[in-house]
Amino acid sequence: MGLSNNKIKYIQSLKEKKFRNEHNTFVAEGNKLVLDLLGSCKCQLIAALPEVIYANPELKAEEIIEASTNELKKASFLKTPPSIIAVFYRPDSEIDKKNLKNKLSLVLDGVQDPGNVGTIIRIADWFGIENIICSEDCADVYNPKTVQATMGSIARVSVTYTDLTKFLNSLSDIPVYGTLLNGNNIYDEELSENGLIIMGSEGKGISDKVLSYISHNLYIPEYPAGVMTSESLNVAVATAIVCSEFRRRKL
Amino acid sequence: MGLSNNKIKYIQSLKEKKFRNEHNTFVAEGNKLVLDLLGSCKCQLIAALPEVIYANPELKAEEIIEASTNELKKASFLKTPPSIIAVFYRPDSEIDKKNLKNKLSLVLDGVQDPGNVGTIIRIADWFGIENIICSEDCADVYNPKTVQATMGSIARVSVTYTDLTKFLNSLSDIPVYGTLLNGNNIYDEELSENGLIIMGSEGKGISDKVLSYISHNLYIPEYPAGVMTSESLNVAVATAIVCSEFRRRKL
Repeated sequence: MGLSNNKIKYIQSLKEKKFRNEHNTFVAEGNKLVLDLLGSCKCQLIAALPEVIYANPELKAEEIIEASTNELKKASFLKTPPSIIAVFYRPDSEIDKKNLKNKLSLVLDGVQDPGNVGTIIRIADWFGIENIICSEDCADVYNPKTVQATMGSIARVSVTYTDLTKFLNSLSDIPVYGTLLNGNNIYDEELSENGLIIMGSEGKGISDKVLSYISHNLYIPEYPAGVMTSESLNVAVATAIVCSEFRRRKL
Repeated sequence: MGLSNNKIKYIQSLKEKKFRNEHNTFVAEGNKLVLDLLGSCKCQLIAALPEVIYANPELKAEEIIEASTNELKKASFLKTPPSIIAVFYRPDSEIDKKNLKNKLSLVLDGVQDPGNVGTIIRIADWFGIENIICSEDCADVYNPKTVQATMGSIARVSVTYTDLTKFLNSLSDIPVYGTLLNGNNIYDEELSENGLIIMGSEGKGISDKVLSYISHNLYIPEYPAGVMTSESLNVAVATAIVCSEFRRRKL
């Protein structure tokens, strides 16, 4: 009984992308996150304190293990170990291009910080954005830090990785927005109900190859206008302001 | 020559609030951040690679030490050690209440994550908000994680800690905004040019004692309206959206 050392090793191995790819699984920790994900992802393994298992009869997995606090501590990636850890199978995620045309979607170009990617998924969820398309060098959505930062939103937002130039090349008849330092004041621009919003990395911005696909350049004005002090906004913060501004017009 | 073990110990000790209070100093790392802070804070100590010292004749401190990569690595709080580390004296920060009446300011109630506080300082800087008033249980602005997350904005935004109820009690004739789940749609509300915007902690929201001082309840609507999926937005993300909305009206 209990969580074996082999299982602890397996969970710990999923910190690395290589092993997540090999097993096609990922780790989620904490009651709320695990319960949220159970609604959308197939669960391979749940390890939890006995009282948590008894209190949540809806827990469903190929294997449910009663674990001790100490075992959970060894398996956890968090500073404060949770009372439940689960391993989920990664859902299939394919881009349904036809489906994108009438929706507002986010495109992330080189956003490498897992916490930022997680926060952006949570923002997308709040603003009813169902699809996020990432360049292949973005942080992995199944990195434990990303999974935790989503606060469960990962269960409701589809995140796919692809070659962005090929992806953008294959689309037509959809407005493509990008945030650039020399863009137009976002508060004054016409913003459509559908389209792609491209967000670049904080350090490098949107890559040259992707820039050419942008049909609408946007800029979040500093205040007072023209008095620029900080050089940039955090990419998740900028994403939030842009999404809020798109949705404000339609509410 | 070089950075002595005693100095390394001193820098490392400043990770703890107790020692920051004792010495009235804090640590900043990296070229940009140190150069930004030199414009506004008195510098006690700079330790940097010799080439960095020669390339930046504007570096000014009570003591400037040529350090090796290995010494900087030992002194640094970052995963990737920087080529320069500095110890600054904390600036005096007192709340000038008279000054607040005509400005827009942020009030943080129990925001405990240092990264969030740092990101909020950066947001304030972008939107021309000069003052942030924090409850005493907020993360310390001089926590190394906060300092780094500000990306230099800490040099331009004044952050003070105080008993919020006493502070709010002492003010009159100023609108006090709070973001609450049962607030009014922020996009439709009248927003003034001056005022206080209170942001609560993610877990607990705005504390009961502080709630009674709010004159205007605001809410960031989810999209589509009425379809709530994620429970909340990250506090820095919510702050960004609120600040953007206040400033949009005045640009």
